[in-house]
Amino acid sequence: MTTTKKTPRKRVSAETLSKNQREISVSEFFAKNRHLLGFDSLRKALLTTVKEAVDNSLDACEEAGILPEIWVTLLSRSEENRYVVQVRDNGPGIVPKQMPNIFGKLLYGSKFHSMKQSRGQQGIGISAAAMYGQLTTGKPLDVTSRTGPRKPAVSMKVIIDTNANKPKTVNQKELDEWHLAHGTELSIELEAKYIKGKQSVDEFIYQTAVANPHASFHYRNPVGELVSFERSVPDNPEPAKEIKPHPHGVELGVLMKMLQSTKQSTVSSFLSSDFSRVSPGLASKIVQRAGLKPRNRPSTIARKEVDSLYRSLNDPATKIMAPPTNCLSPIGMQELLAGLTRGVKAEFFTVETRKPAVYRGNPFQVEVGLAWGGDLPGDSLARVMRFANRVPLLHQAGGCCINKAALEVSWKSYGLQQARGALPTGPLLVMVHLASVWVPFSSESKEAVADYDEIRKEIRLAIQSCGRRMGQFVKRKARARNEAKRREVFNLYLDEVVSCVETITGEDHEKFRKQLMTISKAKTELAELLEEQSSSADEADELAAAENVIIIDPDAVAVESAAPELQGAVNAREQAALDFD
Amino acid sequence: MTTTKKTPRKRVSAETLSKNQREISVSEFFAKNRHLLGFDSLRKALLTTVKEAVDNSLDACEEAGILPEIWVTLLSRSEENRYVVQVRDNGPGIVPKQMPNIFGKLLYGSKFHSMKQSRGQQGIGISAAAMYGQLTTGKPLDVTSRTGPRKPAVSMKVIIDTNANKPKTVNQKELDEWHLAHGTELSIELEAKYIKGKQSVDEFIYQTAVANPHASFHYRNPVGELVSFERSVPDNPEPAKEIKPHPHGVELGVLMKMLQSTKQSTVSSFLSSDFSRVSPGLASKIVQRAGLKPRNRPSTIARKEVDSLYRSLNDPATKIMAPPTNCLSPIGMQELLAGLTRGVKAEFFTVETRKPAVYRGNPFQVEVGLAWGGDLPGDSLARVMRFANRVPLLHQAGGCCINKAALEVSWKSYGLQQARGALPTGPLLVMVHLASVWVPFSSESKEAVADYDEIRKEIRLAIQSCGRRMGQFVKRKARARNEAKRREVFNLYLDEVVSCVETITGEDHEKFRKQLMTISKAKTELAELLEEQSSSADEADELAAAENVIIIDPDAVAVESAAPELQGAVNAREQAALDFD
Repeated sequence: MTTTKKTPRKRVSAETLSKNQREISVSEFFAKNRHLLGFDSLRKALLTTVKEAVDNSLDACEEAGILPEIWVTLLSRSEENRYVVQVRDNGPGIVPKQMPNIFGKLLYGSKFHSMKQSRGQQGIGISAAAMYGQLTTGKPLDVTSRTGPRKPAVSMKVIIDTNANKPKTVNQKELDEWHLAHGTELSIELEAKYIKGKQSVDEFIYQTAVANPHASFHYRNPVGELVSFERSVPDNPEPAKEIKPHPHGVELGVLMKMLQSTKQSTVSSFLSSDFSRVSPGLASKIVQRAGLKPRNRPSTIARKEVDSLYRSLNDPATKIMAPPTNCLSPIGMQELLAGLTRGVKAEFFTVETRKPAVYRGNPFQVEVGLAWGGDLPGDSLARVMRFANRVPLLHQAGGCCINKAALEVSWKSYGLQQARGALPTGPLLVMVHLASVWVPFSSESKEAVADYDEIRKEIRLAIQSCGRRMGQFVKRKARARNEAKRREVFNLYLDEVVSCVETITGEDHEKFRKQLMTISKAKTELAELLEEQSSSADEADELAAAENVIIIDPDAVAVESAAPELQGAVNAREQAALDFD
Repeated sequence: MTTTKKTPRKRVSAETLSKNQREISVSEFFAKNRHLLGFDSLRKALLTTVKEAVDNSLDACEEAGILPEIWVTLLSRSEENRYVVQVRDNGPGIVPKQMPNIFGKLLYGSKFHSMKQSRGQQGIGISAAAMYGQLTTGKPLDVTSRTGPRKPAVSMKVIIDTNANKPKTVNQKELDEWHLAHGTELSIELEAKYIKGKQSVDEFIYQTAVANPHASFHYRNPVGELVSFERSVPDNPEPAKEIKPHPHGVELGVLMKMLQSTKQSTVSSFLSSDFSRVSPGLASKIVQRAGLKPRNRPSTIARKEVDSLYRSLNDPATKIMAPPTNCLSPIGMQELLAGLTRGVKAEFFTVETRKPAVYRGNPFQVEVGLAWGGDLPGDSLARVMRFANRVPLLHQAGGCCINKAALEVSWKSYGLQQARGALPTGPLLVMVHLASVWVPFSSESKEAVADYDEIRKEIRLAIQSCGRRMGQFVKRKARARNEAKRREVFNLYLDEVVSCVETITGEDHEKFRKQLMTISKAKTELAELLEEQSSSADEADELAAAENVIIIDPDAVAVESAAPELQGAVNAREQAALDFD
């Protein structure tokens, strides 16, 4: 045991202390805190890098109105734990002067200030991946982009000066020829680890394909396996529209800031043009209730008047419509079914799309798909696939609002076994998509949704709707199975009974046997009927006729034993079943 | 069920898309993502604000060599959910030109670039609190500071321009008189909620007092209760020394950056002066193994040579001592015992300080204290108090490395009940302190320690050492209790046996009774002996004589019923027991 020795020391003055005070660049900050951005392990670094690049590609294609086609290649280098991530898209391309900022500056982008649904929202992701690659391997990011067939492709290497959070470029050149008419291709070398499994890049690509049926993906992993997911719907989703902030989501300090920076010349016009859902008429009422004059200049409003304007905006008597929801771009019912059947070999599929709702002034919408039976493993816990703005979430399930909602559902009432506090056991997959103008992620690495009551409730309600439909199917299947079992047992004893009766009476009772058989058949007809119904999608079946349900004939879904090595592009559906561990 | 209508739309060009690309200021980013900084609920906003201010006060006092005296006042405003947080310290003060940056600019400070233990490390905390206050109430932070008795106190209001992450000041003035010779006083008005309980400001102040026995605290909560914790040790902790980075914690990209920016003129001198634990002799060997010349200029080293220098540094044949540990400032064994007995009414206390260890090149050290019995509730789960660099962690226990380590311990072997996967049940408090140059927090809000194997192992080992000592005490107590019980049962039946024998023989057996009593006394002497031993700290007891153990005489620790309202400064120990819910 040691005791601390005290050395007497002089007082240090404020002047001396102040010499060490200085600015910290945001890239230094995140370089040291890289675990906040999803670079806390070698395996996760690989996933995060692919994810950020693919998210950007899909966003760019959709924003430009191009059907996305994405190529992802992972190359293993000879050094241990060294990989190259290459991502290519057929998007609109990037104008050369923006390329350095987009890839070489943290907190730069177009999505942060815009109120509409997109995958990216922070302006950190891809530049953080480039920075991580640079820190661990010393290699800059390499990018080539072309904005159209009559423009040259421009290529450059981007280095981040982390002390200043500023990009430097080297080797910038125009290419005489390039293989794409428009699009972007980037490659990042980084320290990483490729491991298969539920949190792998393979799984990320697979789940991204499920949630983005309008996009095609071509993916080659470091062990040389190539898998393609061709698009299963022919159109991009309806593009999300940008909206203005809703008065009920605005805080006092933000209101003050908006008043200072508005281009409008009166308070009244400020309210009606800088907010959503405020008509000129409503604006006058709000101004009047606040005791202001409609023609007051926004920038000259005094501190006290802002307070009363704020109170008037949030007064229960001031009725303001919920924010518009065309800022959202849900996957859609049919597209969700297409995505699910494209990726999962199950017997029963159903989906539910909730109406848009609002949390903290931000519109959001929940979509849920359930898949049951088929090749899904029946003896393990149900699996929850989580998506936010069409991006799969593969980490931090325990802390995620989506998982919490799934745990709140009483699955026993749908005919499944469920231990207390656990997901149900059975051949079940639950897919949940949360679309929002601003997804409240629990960290910058965007791995889990923060637990807002409004969001959890919407998810639970959607799961319950699907669950009820699934319950009907599951219970009828169980009933049919029980009836069939009864008939089997009945038939088993029939011969025994007849032979006993023969022994007792000493006579041949063939007629008796036939009578018993007739009774058995009559009694178990119901089982046959039910079995037929539940095993055929063509049956005039109310459940199967619903447009949010698909029932697959189980006989047609024979279990195919796919080879573990994948040569060339294989059928996406088979491949998916293989990867589905 | 609605179906999405597709409207055909034009392709958008890269040029159009590029117009929305722009820089995002770090304060805009954190304003929108404020939950990352600990402002996700009204209650937590109050705690985070107090915490950031108190952390800064303690750091400043210790750095300047001043024994800290901190005043915290929470005032409730007439508006609903409006509070003012006032924190005052007797620290070195802040020079006027630094005040705007420290309070009005995110990512600004002295601790981020310095490799030594401190409470703050990011340069975000207090400015984020000021920003939160400003956004929710529109009010700027108010600060007064004085750097010495011959200097005037300077006061100003600091406003953050979130668009640019730049401070603006108003009402700056010199005060003719101020009540402190040196120190800083700040006040922030904010939307918040005051609730008592385990995650309250009350609890934070109490735990901070336990982990900082050299500091005095005076705290007044919004319901007017005043509580004081006077310092219980007379000296500041030994100040932490700043160290240089250790070669094994440096990545390739960082090495390249260091080579570019060093002031040294040769590779050899660069290695020996910019890193810790690299002597000039070792530097020559490293340079030689890398195939470089010792006199090479650092900035002219080519890409390939950096690779071999990096490999040579990390070559197992290059033996480099572990980093120095005087960058750490643990609480210390006696101070920890003083802190624990100051705050907890228990019967048995023991502490353990581990030797410093290293994770990812960063030195760290673990200290653990256990308190058992006394007023601690015996029928609930044990409580874990977590500290990082002397700061209590009140949120996200589930995801914290410290909790995980406590769950890994097999408490049954120390005589406690423990359900699988849970903390033990019993009158137990576990206090864990992690000191490090860089605590790997799992989020910017610094609420939990990320789960590093090296850290978890050190914590577990320290808990186990304490646990074994506690086990001895607990088991002896249990043995004594059992013996006493046996005697009671024995005496209970003694009269019965004697009267039965009298009935049978018809004689008076007073002599027989006396004989039985003598036997009973002899048989249960052990119980008396054991009880005496375990109930007195003065007993010549090996356990009690250990310098890392304190045993309190339970008879002297009578339960005092303290009044719920606190008038004036009360005895800290009584108060602590009261707040200890």
